[in-house]
Amino acid sequence: MKTEILYGIHPVYEALAARRRRVYEIYLLKEKNAGRLGRIVALAESRGIAQQTIEPGDFRGLVGTARHQGVAARVSPYSLTAFSDLLQTVRNRNGKFFLLMLDNILDPQNLGAVIRTALAAGVDGVIVPKDHCAPPTPAVAKASAGALEHIRLSRVTNLVQTIKQCKNNGLWIIGLQKDAPKSIYAGDLTGSIAILLGGEQKGLRPLVKKNCDFLFSIPQQGPVDSLNASAAAAVAMYEAVRQRRGG
Amino acid sequence: MKTEILYGIHPVYEALAARRRRVYEIYLLKEKNAGRLGRIVALAESRGIAQQTIEPGDFRGLVGTARHQGVAARVSPYSLTAFSDLLQTVRNRNGKFFLLMLDNILDPQNLGAVIRTALAAGVDGVIVPKDHCAPPTPAVAKASAGALEHIRLSRVTNLVQTIKQCKNNGLWIIGLQKDAPKSIYAGDLTGSIAILLGGEQKGLRPLVKKNCDFLFSIPQQGPVDSLNASAAAAVAMYEAVRQRRGG
Repeated sequence: MKTEILYGIHPVYEALAARRRRVYEIYLLKEKNAGRLGRIVALAESRGIAQQTIEPGDFRGLVGTARHQGVAARVSPYSLTAFSDLLQTVRNRNGKFFLLMLDNILDPQNLGAVIRTALAAGVDGVIVPKDHCAPPTPAVAKASAGALEHIRLSRVTNLVQTIKQCKNNGLWIIGLQKDAPKSIYAGDLTGSIAILLGGEQKGLRPLVKKNCDFLFSIPQQGPVDSLNASAAAAVAMYEAVRQRRGG
Repeated sequence: MKTEILYGIHPVYEALAARRRRVYEIYLLKEKNAGRLGRIVALAESRGIAQQTIEPGDFRGLVGTARHQGVAARVSPYSLTAFSDLLQTVRNRNGKFFLLMLDNILDPQNLGAVIRTALAAGVDGVIVPKDHCAPPTPAVAKASAGALEHIRLSRVTNLVQTIKQCKNNGLWIIGLQKDAPKSIYAGDLTGSIAILLGGEQKGLRPLVKKNCDFLFSIPQQGPVDSLNASAAAAVAMYEAVRQRRGG
């Protein structure tokens, strides 16, 4: 049975709340078994989940980082969403798609931050290529403040094929490209769309970029190179939110 | 003579480029003296700045972190901008003010990320309260990818007094507040404005909030608590950018 260790208050709480992973056991740091952890303890108790208090020295060894905030959980692996299921969900509610696709987001901190914003922006799902994006590890769960537990995330083998499938399903593919002549504010983001964002270092791969319907930039001033990936993602997703609210 | 140690490729390069700090000496990690550091080496040589190669073991001790990317610099302390100078600069170019004010942003990573986005969004300056915001340390310079070296940053003793002075200078104070009934998209951000953002944990202090002309929220979906501070800052500043471009 494959399991992993989630750590941090938000990831552990949201894993319990989202109920997508099986939670086998909660680990609490001995002196910290109180206060902000109370919500977790209560929820775990109500579900009959085993709880164990652990000495500080052993805790660090269990989770492999110091950033655990005194709580961890042994859970089943992250529950991915098949791309076909993602499309079906939106079709079932007769909605317009609002997807986020990522390419070359290799840093777990960036991926987590982007996922946290994507959940707040109400995207229907996030699509990442298996070989060109960080995997959804506990570090990503931590950086997302637990948003990873709620977002629908698909990992695909071939992002270009997925883009083509999206197009066949009536989605417009909106690529972000820092030197694109048209700004994101000139784009129509009200329909069924997938916003496609590249990493800070490498950007979008050429074939990925070539398959976009539109390429838009985020206007930037100043001498420093570029917005970071999570800021660019926030600006683009929220421009879509604004347009889709009609305001 | 008080000096500090900047570290990382972007902070050191941007300190040289911005010319606001005196750069006394550049330190390079022995094996890394090539490639991406070449720009820094060339610029330092053209200015006659001393360069010293240092052994890996000593480097970590010099900068106090492993996140140095093989380069550091001994520089004069960060060059703050007086609030009165900030106002004067904008007045001299007959412009509309676009300021960012922060309250309770205590994490250097968050502060750096917000400053990076602020520079890209073209804000005229960032105002922080001395006792309720992280100071502009080398860690902030690193998190800002060097944007700290270019942004105009004022540290003020009493943020409420500064807000009042801003109002006397014709600025509208736009506070972000997650449960505000009106969304940021309903606000008029085209005039002389200061966007005021609180930290993730503590938000805006009550008296600070009370002195805002408007309080707006960023619409959020999903069960996880809130956008992080740097995402909220990016969304709000770029909504102002959009409106001010007339787009």
